[in-house]
Formats: sequence, C-alpha cells, structure tokens
Amino acid sequence: MDRDFLSRIRCERLRPRIKTAEEAAGLIKDGMHVGTSGFTPCGYPKVVPLAVAERVKRGEKITLTVGTGASVGRELDETWASLGIIERRYPYQTGNIINRLINEGVVAFTDIHLSQVGKHVRQKLLGPMDLAIVEAVAVTEEGGIVPSTSVGSAPVFVAEAKDVVIEINTTQPPHLEGMHDIFPTSSPPLAKPIPICRGDERIGLPFIPCNPEKIAAIVHSTIPDEARELGNPDETTEQIARHLIDFLLEEFGSQQLPPIQSGVGPLANHVLKGLLAGPWETFVIWSEVIQDAVLDMINAKRIQFASGTSLSPSPAILKRFYEEIDKYVGKIILRPQEISNHPEIIRRLNLLSMNAVLEIDIYGNANSTHIFGSRMVNGIGGSGDFSRNAGLVIMMTPSITKEGKISRIVPLVTHVDHTEHEVHVVVTEQGVADLRGKTPREKAMAIIENCSHPTYKPLLKDYLKRAMKQGGHTPILLEEALQWHIRCVKTGSMKM
Amino acid sequence: MDRDFLSRIRCERLRPRIKTAEEAAGLIKDGMHVGTSGFTPCGYPKVVPLAVAERVKRGEKITLTVGTGASVGRELDETWASLGIIERRYPYQTGNIINRLINEGVVAFTDIHLSQVGKHVRQKLLGPMDLAIVEAVAVTEEGGIVPSTSVGSAPVFVAEAKDVVIEINTTQPPHLEGMHDIFPTSSPPLAKPIPICRGDERIGLPFIPCNPEKIAAIVHSTIPDEARELGNPDETTEQIARHLIDFLLEEFGSQQLPPIQSGVGPLANHVLKGLLAGPWETFVIWSEVIQDAVLDMINAKRIQFASGTSLSPSPAILKRFYEEIDKYVGKIILRPQEISNHPEIIRRLNLLSMNAVLEIDIYGNANSTHIFGSRMVNGIGGSGDFSRNAGLVIMMTPSITKEGKISRIVPLVTHVDHTEHEVHVVVTEQGVADLRGKTPREKAMAIIENCSHPTYKPLLKDYLKRAMKQGGHTPILLEEALQWHIRCVKTGSMKM
Repeated sequence: MDRDFLSRIRCERLRPRIKTAEEAAGLIKDGMHVGTSGFTPCGYPKVVPLAVAERVKRGEKITLTVGTGASVGRELDETWASLGIIERRYPYQTGNIINRLINEGVVAFTDIHLSQVGKHVRQKLLGPMDLAIVEAVAVTEEGGIVPSTSVGSAPVFVAEAKDVVIEINTTQPPHLEGMHDIFPTSSPPLAKPIPICRGDERIGLPFIPCNPEKIAAIVHSTIPDEARELGNPDETTEQIARHLIDFLLEEFGSQQLPPIQSGVGPLANHVLKGLLAGPWETFVIWSEVIQDAVLDMINAKRIQFASGTSLSPSPAILKRFYEEIDKYVGKIILRPQEISNHPEIIRRLNLLSMNAVLEIDIYGNANSTHIFGSRMVNGIGGSGDFSRNAGLVIMMTPSITKEGKISRIVPLVTHVDHTEHEVHVVVTEQGVADLRGKTPREKAMAIIENCSHPTYKPLLKDYLKRAMKQGGHTPILLEEALQWHIRCVKTGSMKM
Repeated sequence: MDRDFLSRIRCERLRPRIKTAEEAAGLIKDGMHVGTSGFTPCGYPKVVPLAVAERVKRGEKITLTVGTGASVGRELDETWASLGIIERRYPYQTGNIINRLINEGVVAFTDIHLSQVGKHVRQKLLGPMDLAIVEAVAVTEEGGIVPSTSVGSAPVFVAEAKDVVIEINTTQPPHLEGMHDIFPTSSPPLAKPIPICRGDERIGLPFIPCNPEKIAAIVHSTIPDEARELGNPDETTEQIARHLIDFLLEEFGSQQLPPIQSGVGPLANHVLKGLLAGPWETFVIWSEVIQDAVLDMINAKRIQFASGTSLSPSPAILKRFYEEIDKYVGKIILRPQEISNHPEIIRRLNLLSMNAVLEIDIYGNANSTHIFGSRMVNGIGGSGDFSRNAGLVIMMTPSITKEGKISRIVPLVTHVDHTEHEVHVVVTEQGVADLRGKTPREKAMAIIENCSHPTYKPLLKDYLKRAMKQGGHTPILLEEALQWHIRCVKTGSMKM
C-alpha cells in the first residue's frame, strides 16, 4: 500500500477502515442523500464517485440526492448526471450535461444561497443525510478530517451524515494542513456571535471533527483537482476593470479598501489584478473562492491575508502554489462556506463586493441565473449572501453580448436575483452608475446614460421617457417591458 | 411655563434652550436635510413640523430632504407633502398625499431597507444631515434624550446632525423612560459583534447620548400620537391565520416557537392573536412594531418579552397601556431600528418572520411595494431585512382582491422585493405552500394547488403546463407572463 497514503492516516485505529474505491462505492444505495466536499472543481471526491459510476454502467440502478459546497469537477457532476445518477442536486452546479438535464426538468435542482446550505441540511429540508464523501489530505491522531483545497459544506455534511467516506488524495500537498479553520456553527437557539472582526482571526479547528465510529471507509485517491484555465481578458473586460478602479479611487482615495469579495471567473480575476495598479498598498480578501489573482497578489506581498472557502487557481498557478506552498502559509484561511458567506460577518466587515451578472434592468434589478427568465445557468451561488449584506455592492457586466444582438441592460430583467435594494453600483465597459441614495427614475437615468451600449441607449431612453409619462414611482410599461427578450427569442436579436 | 414640561428637562444648563415651536422652526432653512424621530405614527415630532408648515403657508419657500424611521403621522408627512416642503423622502412613508406625489415623480423617494438607514446617513449618501428633530419624554441630567414611543433612526440622526431640536411631549408618560435600549452601533472597520443572543438582553443606554452643545432648542409638545384603528379582521384574514397556525403546529408541535417578527397591520395583528389559541405557553417577540396583539399577550402573561423599535397600538389599547404602564415595564424593549432589523441578530435568533405581500408569483417571488409594477404603495420597509435573514420566512396574502377581479397569485410578479430564494412559505386563505427544498416547478405546483383561488387555479395550471412544455428550470412564457396585469389595467379584471 502507498506509504504516503498510509502515513497520512495518523489515527492508527482507523487503518482497518481502509478500503478500495469499489468497496466504498458499495456503501451507496439507490435513493440515498449524499453530501460531498468540493467547492468549484477543487477538493471534491473523485475515485468513489467514479466507482459508483462503474456500478451504474454495469446495469445497477442508483439515483441520489446530491449536495455539495458549490460546483464540483466532472468526475462527480458530469459523470453522474450523464448516467442518470443525480435525481436531485443542490446548491449550485456547472457542467453542460447536468445543466441541460436541469433545464429539461429531469434533474431536480434546488438553488440555495450558499450560506444556507448548512441550515437546509440540519433542518433536513432535503431529507436526512445518509452519507458524506470528503476529500482530505490527512486524518489526524484524533480522527479529525483535514480537508484539501476546499472546505465548502463538508463540516455540516460530516456532522449530519450517518456514515462518512474519506478520500485521501495524495496529489494534494500535506502542507495544506493548517490552512483550514473549522468553526462549529452553533444552531439556534444556542447560536452565539461569530468572533470575527477583521477577517484574519482563526476561531476554530484545523480539521473537521468527526465521530470515528461514523468513518465507514478511507480510500486512496491520486486524481488531481480539475484545475481550469481562466482565459485571457478581452478589451471589454479590461475596460470594466478600469472603470471599476476609477470608481474605487473616487470613493476611497488611497485609504485602505474594505475587505474584498470577488466573484468567480475571468472578469472578477482581472478586476482584482487591476487593483494592483492602484494606490492601495495592501489588500484584505474575504471571499468564497481564491483564484489566480489573489495568489499573485500574495506572491507580490500585496495581500495582508485572504479568507475563503476554496482554493481554485488555474493549472499553472496551482502548480506554483504547490511548489512554493510555504509562501502562502499564514496568508490563507479556508473556512466553511457557512462562515465565508455568513451575513453576520459580511455586514460587520462592511465588504466591498464585486460580482458579474447576466443582465440588469434600468432600475438596478439584477439577473444572475436565468437566460430569458427560464433557462438556469449555474445558480445564485454566494452572490446573494454578499449582495444582501455587503457594505458596497458592485455588479459588473459587459453592456452587450452576442456581437451586440443582446443588450445586458434591459427595461426589465426576466428574473430577479438581486433587487434594486441590493445593487449599489453598476459597471459596464461603458462606465459606472452609482445608484446609492437615488430614486428609481434617477437610477434609470444613470444606468442608461453611463452603462448602456450606444446601440441600445436611444431605445432605453425612449422607453424611459414614455414610461415616465405613464407615471408611477418605478415606471414600467407592462406591454413593452419584456418585448426585448421576446424579440430576441424570435429573431435572435434585441435590435428593433 | 408648564411644570411637567420643565421638570422633564433634568439637565439644568439646557433650560435656557427652551424655545417656542415657532422659534425652533426658524432653525429650518430651505434646502436642508432633516432627520426626525418616529416609526409608524408614534414618537414623531409634531409641533415644530406644524410651525414650519405655518411659515410656508405664509409664503416662505422651504424644501427639504426628510429622513425618518419609517412612516410618521400626518402632522409631518401629509402636512409637509401637501405644502411642497418635502423634496426628497426616505426610507418609508404612508399617506395619500405624499404617496400620490411620489408616484407622480414630484417627491423623490429613496426606498431603503430599514436596517440600512443608519449606514446611508453615516455615509452621507443623501447628503450631510443638518438638523435632527426628536420627540422625547425627558432630557436626562447628562443631556441624554429619552425617546417616547419609538426609537427608529433617532440615534443616528442625533449623532450625525449639526443641530438637534427636542420636542418634549408631555402627553407621553414619563414611565416610558427605561424601556429604551440605545446601543451605539460601531462603524466599520471597528464594528464588533452585537451581544444579543436571546432577544431580551439590554446592551445599551436608556437614552440617546447627545453632545449638549448641539441641542439648539427644546420645545413643549402636547399633541398626542396619532394612534390608528386597526380594523376588524374579516373571514379571509381569519382563514389565513388559521392556516398559518396549523402550519406552525405541524412545523414546531408544542415546542417553544422561535422569536417572532410580525409585520404591521390588521392581518399580522390577527395572526399574532391567533397564536394564543395554540399549545405554546409563552412567546418571544423580536420585531419592528409592537401592536395591539403583543400588548394583549403581555396582559395575558403569555409574552416573555417583546423587543421592537416602535410601540404603535390602536387608540383604546394605547390608552390602556398608558394607564397600566407598570404592567409592561420590564417586558418591552425599544431599540434603534439598526438593531431591531439587524441581519446579524435576525439570523442568530433564527426568527419566525411573518409578513403580508401585495402579490406573489408561482415561483415564490414576492412584490411588497408596487401595484402593476409602477405604483409605489409604501416601500419595502423592514420586510427585506427579515426575509433575507430570518430562519423561517412566511409571506401571507389573500388569494384574490377587488371582489376576485385581481388574483394575488400571478404567473410573474411585476416587481420583486423578495426573491424565490427568500420566501419559504406562502399562506393564503386557501391554504399553505411550503417551498423549502423545492425546485421552481415544484414550488409552482404547490403554490397553485394550495394557495391560488379556485377562479384562477385552472388558468394558472394551464399556464404552468404550457410553460413546462416550453422548458427551462424556471419555465416562464415571456409573452404571457405579464398579460394578467395588462388585461387588468385595460379591463379592470385579470379574468379572461
């Protein structure tokens, strides 16, 4: 047996629980509710899900309710979804196959604010949890589970599941141990304040506590995280980043910025990088996902510390991180998503929150999830946790897409994830609209004037003018409000 | 001079600041930003606003930005609005005249989550505050201001304003002193956890601290609060209350309920009263507004304690409260709305939140504010603070209105204040839909089946069936989704 693998199981009495992936997969029965580690394609279990898939390929019927931290890698979502294993899924997902099945109504998808996954599980709103599968770098002397590149909802899954399967992944460096901070969130009515006031406080344990009796199998995994390329920023992305940084300069001058939350993806990553050119000496990150830019900023000694629930760099940056991990020790804390996304902390830290959206309407309502109101993209993820509680909420989007056939600034969004009450600032490559303190009519004028694309600006202005003539605090022309989308479905373009 | 009035100014060196209402009104200049106490028609200033109105009636031009806790009585909103004094208003309002002017675009109205008023003021998002006018029952030896029947945003207005005017209202009993708990919310980045874990903790001062230098005038007021009748519940209200209580019985059995937040108005009041018939011995209230039912429940010794920011009973119950105030001492805490509505506490206490909405769509998106998407009713108030953070969020509405011409369950709401992510349970007189853990399609089936009116149920079922055929995670027929409202605007009825 692999010596590295064995040496990572420091609790001697758990060694008899070592099993093959196939044996561990045998614990999974049709109809079960399974919760796994993983948040973005990192830190999720791989070999046991693949072994379950093999059983199904051989003709067994297994359908499951599957909970994770957020999205996970293809060994889990895409493999399982393509085989019909996933009957119900929460709280977030990415992947072409699972996405198609959700939109066809085949996979039941429960979209949940990421901070509220723990509550849903504890309250058994999706049924009692049968099994947790957690990727780990080690099992401690006490039987504690040391997670790998993400924490996500693994702690609550472990606490609630009847049985626990651990995948020790020896491609994950043992030095990740010490980066995690697992705070045992107390349930109401016993809940106490969460003692985080700056962001860098360690308040919990470096491992997930687990009753050793529940550990049903420990499996060796050698499949690395499915790190994904971020893609290069285009001119539009760079313009958005420039406008955003100009706005932050105007708002904060050279004062220390509040702790920063930044969404997942190339736009968010590029904006973060852009901050390095500003007058701010150092930054504090309080976010979900730690991407390339944050690791670069740590490398450049411009980050005081970064707190997240997941470490999700692109392949090259992940390689560097693994090789020079000592540089990052003490600068990164990975927490349960219940803490990283907790309203209490987000409000207290007065976060600067920056997220991308699909479309936004002239009154500032934002759609992060549904194309033409119906087709789910990924889910609301953590954006709602942050938008509803951060100190400064910035929503970013290119003003157009599909070569200008679609305006992302519309008279009325087809789905609302963030209401006009949550969205403080809108940034497109055209400019910035600061909505704070404004009335709906004032917001509409600012968004149209500063953020809409020249192709659509006259149309939006004309719409607003006629809507204001009709009257109302938030003037909407009901017969026209969704016509842009209707036209686009019919003709492929929002243009008249 | 009135001896009661004089005796209430316990800080001797402030007695020279005693002025007439007319003199105090002279401090108000055209263009100022004025913040007043008051939250619902109680605890708001009366004689100074009326004196300002007199100046305008005599031909002076005075237009102001006016901030309050929430709605206030007619001496302020209606009188000022009708004279054109209010140029901009936040964060909430009621009243026919001001409402009409807002919808005509004459009064600029900034609708703000009530927990975020303090932040808006401190950040000067509506400009620096010039003057605070606060109704009080006393001024302490140290110059502290003891509020009357509400706290609202008076503490932050007092802290931020250049000058402060105090109206000592001798119709308000001095025994109110001791009921308030003014916690000095620290601003980021210095913010600390708010040390409330059960709801009954006193964590602050019994008065609003104020630099005595800023107190520009102390005025005597003898105009009582404009207590309003609640109206009697109709059969529909009683059915909603019955369904809600059945649901709570199923959810909690006879266990102690979580602390209760209940909206303002006859429906909320009746639901609270209905709880007395349940198996629960005592209740804890953590809410904004303490209405008749809560005082009745205290009277019946069924309330452990009630925390709110405003005491707003109907005339008869207010009279009883004044007469028997000793019964209520120790059972009621009035806090700043920044605390009563604070996400941190709402989440920690795991509140049971019950609010009425204007309309709700089949996917659980709720509209609390805008008729036909355009016409503002009152504002989002505190409902968003509670819906976004409470443990169990229940939205109530009759299934129809206008003698059945309008269905309150619609294919798509015309304005979203609470998204599908926030609304856990929908209750109408028809029944209860528990949306937790469900997919959008499952939510739609539950809402239509359990909550819609028989007149509209077949139409909604038909819509959903066709929408599901079209496909999508949240199937919407864009061409039809708003047709019910469009038809109603044209014909006066949503019926086909």
